[in-house]
Amino acid sequence: MPTIDLNCDMGESFGAYTIGADVEVMRSISSANVACGYHGGDPAVMRRTVRLAREAGVSVGAHPGFPDLVGFGRREMRVTPQEVEDMVLYQVGALAAIAAAEGVRLRHVKAHGALYNMAARDRALADGIARAVRAFDPSLMLFVLPASELQRAGEAAGLHVALEGFADRAYEPDGSLTPRSRSGAVIHDPAEVVARAVRMAKGGGVTATDGSHVALRVHTICTHGDTPGAHELTRLLRAGLERDGMGVAPAGSAAP
Amino acid sequence: MPTIDLNCDMGESFGAYTIGADVEVMRSISSANVACGYHGGDPAVMRRTVRLAREAGVSVGAHPGFPDLVGFGRREMRVTPQEVEDMVLYQVGALAAIAAAEGVRLRHVKAHGALYNMAARDRALADGIARAVRAFDPSLMLFVLPASELQRAGEAAGLHVALEGFADRAYEPDGSLTPRSRSGAVIHDPAEVVARAVRMAKGGGVTATDGSHVALRVHTICTHGDTPGAHELTRLLRAGLERDGMGVAPAGSAAP
Amino acid sequence: MPTIDLNCDMGESFGAYTIGADVEVMRSISSANVACGYHGGDPAVMRRTVRLAREAGVSVGAHPGFPDLVGFGRREMRVTPQEVEDMVLYQVGALAAIAAAEGVRLRHVKAHGALYNMAARDRALADGIARAVRAFDPSLMLFVLPASELQRAGEAAGLHVALEGFADRAYEPDGSLTPRSRSGAVIHDPAEVVARAVRMAKGGGVTATDGSHVALRVHTICTHGDTPGAHELTRLLRAGLERDGMGVAPAGSAAP
Amino acid sequence: MPTIDLNCDMGESFGAYTIGADVEVMRSISSANVACGYHGGDPAVMRRTVRLAREAGVSVGAHPGFPDLVGFGRREMRVTPQEVEDMVLYQVGALAAIAAAEGVRLRHVKAHGALYNMAARDRALADGIARAVRAFDPSLMLFVLPASELQRAGEAAGLHVALEGFADRAYEPDGSLTPRSRSGAVIHDPAEVVARAVRMAKGGGVTATDGSHVALRVHTICTHGDTPGAHELTRLLRAGLERDGMGVAPAGSAAP
Repeated sequence: MPTIDLNCDMGESFGAYTIGADVEVMRSISSANVACGYHGGDPAVMRRTVRLAREAGVSVGAHPGFPDLVGFGRREMRVTPQEVEDMVLYQVGALAAIAAAEGVRLRHVKAHGALYNMAARDRALADGIARAVRAFDPSLMLFVLPASELQRAGEAAGLHVALEGFADRAYEPDGSLTPRSRSGAVIHDPAEVVARAVRMAKGGGVTATDGSHVALRVHTICTHGDTPGAHELTRLLRAGLERDGMGVAPAGSAAP
Repeated sequence: MPTIDLNCDMGESFGAYTIGADVEVMRSISSANVACGYHGGDPAVMRRTVRLAREAGVSVGAHPGFPDLVGFGRREMRVTPQEVEDMVLYQVGALAAIAAAEGVRLRHVKAHGALYNMAARDRALADGIARAVRAFDPSLMLFVLPASELQRAGEAAGLHVALEGFADRAYEPDGSLTPRSRSGAVIHDPAEVVARAVRMAKGGGVTATDGSHVALRVHTICTHGDTPGAHELTRLLRAGLERDGMGVAPAGSAAP
Repeated sequence: MPTIDLNCDMGESFGAYTIGADVEVMRSISSANVACGYHGGDPAVMRRTVRLAREAGVSVGAHPGFPDLVGFGRREMRVTPQEVEDMVLYQVGALAAIAAAEGVRLRHVKAHGALYNMAARDRALADGIARAVRAFDPSLMLFVLPASELQRAGEAAGLHVALEGFADRAYEPDGSLTPRSRSGAVIHDPAEVVARAVRMAKGGGVTATDGSHVALRVHTICTHGDTPGAHELTRLLRAGLERDGMGVAPAGSAAP
Repeated sequence: MPTIDLNCDMGESFGAYTIGADVEVMRSISSANVACGYHGGDPAVMRRTVRLAREAGVSVGAHPGFPDLVGFGRREMRVTPQEVEDMVLYQVGALAAIAAAEGVRLRHVKAHGALYNMAARDRALADGIARAVRAFDPSLMLFVLPASELQRAGEAAGLHVALEGFADRAYEPDGSLTPRSRSGAVIHDPAEVVARAVRMAKGGGVTATDGSHVALRVHTICTHGDTPGAHELTRLLRAGLERDGMGVAPAGSAAP
């Protein structure tokens, strides 16, 4: 059975603050991107999230972001590649220690928010991320936007990259995501999201905003956990994929 | 040649802020307790400090503290043992990742400031630290105040503990440190500090504030790097120890 | 018509994190204690909360806390009276500026969490709070636990103090709150909470855990906004008070 | 006697960290830009700095920056105008409260680091700053780079603006500062810095990097306090200005 990975940002709660429906979402995904205390998450939340993932049989990865808690890591910051490399190492190491204490080994790294977006278009920052991942553990898989600078940086560093697709986002004819500022950028109809995911997972690509076809190879599909009804959508996604003969399993674990 | 360890808190600078004379002090010590970003330090400082230590042949340990940058980790916080365990794991893991990227493996853990002081007298918090260290790497040495709850916790957890002495601090007849609030608590005369260090290192104990003798076995002697003239004192300490036939080497590394 | 104040902690959300049901609770209370960015709240949340209060005709006060976001200001920190004075001034001034930009003047100050608890029993810290409030605006009302050191400090500083009662908390025979760690410390039955509030508001005191009567004069009753169903309870509280002939109005505003 | 203002960033120390030579520099300047806890400074430092300024007869202003302590407010962050407005209000209000407790009233606002630079070229962000200043106290003077968007925003908001010159920075023919990345951007020769300051203060403009003359009207000259020897340079600057018949006094205080 062919498989596809379903990943979701997890463990972004902080102290007394809860965000996302981690318990419910964890039942449907195969990879959890666990926040590491910079844009969200704290040591207690990290441990709790790793435990949840372990119990659900979900693969755990690090989800490092900018040191901007009040901005949730969504505001671009003019950082140097060296700053990025160091902050990624710091966060990945912190999570890895907590995960190891729970008997869990990290399997992937996915940059968060503005760091992900900046690394998609800035090769030097992307190289900083890739260097950090390779230095920490070259067997970690790096989640990347297809055709981004981060994909190039990851491959140049000899890392396994997992190409990521977004079932609830519109695509431009050139394969980039339609900016959120534009109307129609986010697809809200669950049935359509599921249909797009299935097609994407099967290698069928996506239809762009102008109706043209975009070829798109993806290893993992991103779902969002912090919107109302998110975990219901994630449940539908998984059910839809399985109904169509796709297994849901961590990226890189596919059998021949 | 018998050896003694000289340890010092290092890497407590932060961003644009410099504290301590790390470059100079690093030449005289054998163990660097590297701050991990909670009470001081940041990823860039951590990397720089690890590199300095490596180049100087100094053993690197983690120096986790409370998440209280403005208080420099010196203010006691009412935390739970689980919070302590998680925050120590987080910080040790973060530093270990950066150290590994510099080809350095951590050798010890020393809690900072208020965390060290609270763990000296509160067994539950001490156990939290010990659990974190054991979970991360049971071969890490734990630096402890002799006869403290942290010593007991470390030993109960099966960790190697290094007993720590303070050459520039006065001792009470019961072997505890004279509180800093009392006059004479800190010894400022370099010659006296060196003499006390040598005696301590050789197993001769210390003379308490009432003139009585306190037996005191120590594996490592703490020096301070953030006071004026600190690195000169550290240099004198090392010279004094060596003049008296003591080698200066990381705790636990003593040859037969 | 006699009146009583109903106060609630508001504006404790932070960045992407939402806590409490401020919109709903604001409809039922007369005084909002607005977090100031240390234990919760951020400049955007502060402005939004002040605006909500203004639109609901609710009196606005500052709710300063410890600089411990991950602990939500609930962990005691060993701070000096001077540190407390400065951190209260900082937070009150920050909120006052944002409130003034919204055409609102602060009316009271209520310390948050561990700061409130420590100031209730430590006169020196309580004096620090009182000095800050007096220095900023001596007409601000200080919310205090009756018979606490904070009441004494406020009165000694010549401040107007508003005595605070807790309708959903059990009391000891000596008038202190039953510690949360003890079973029965929090009263969950809405009808009982309302009944206690009405009696308290009318000057009838409370029945202690041992059945004895505790005389208790209160000017303001605290309700909680961050528990499930909290806003429904607050609505019931107000309805119950009004049904019993009590008006709900900010402390200090009552006409004879 | 004609006067010119000498301003310097002050109070950027934080907790245990000291930066700058505030005590010495305060003797030579007429306006202190006091950090407000976001990029540097904390409530205790703020109070100490205001007190120093008061004792030296130096005018006090707020120096708000980005919430990026580890980056010292020097990294650009993609913030919205509303975020800027709120963070400026928060910081100015916090400092004003502490200053008032020391009997000092704020006289000006100067944005820090990346916020200053971004507001110089982005009118929407500049308007956010201007709105915050006007809302807090329309009599506050706003320090601006001449011909910047911030000057325009300040004037459009009806604020008093003080045009700022940099005696130790090279200028381009169009009146902009030579970017620090270019060699020669910073002038290190004290005698030249003093000569440029005197000429600037007298309305004589500056000579640009290509030798051309740039007309430049300035009300205040910025000096830097955090470089080695900075306070000696500041002392020379003041002495040079006075020797040439210029008084040193806060912007806007010129006598008839």
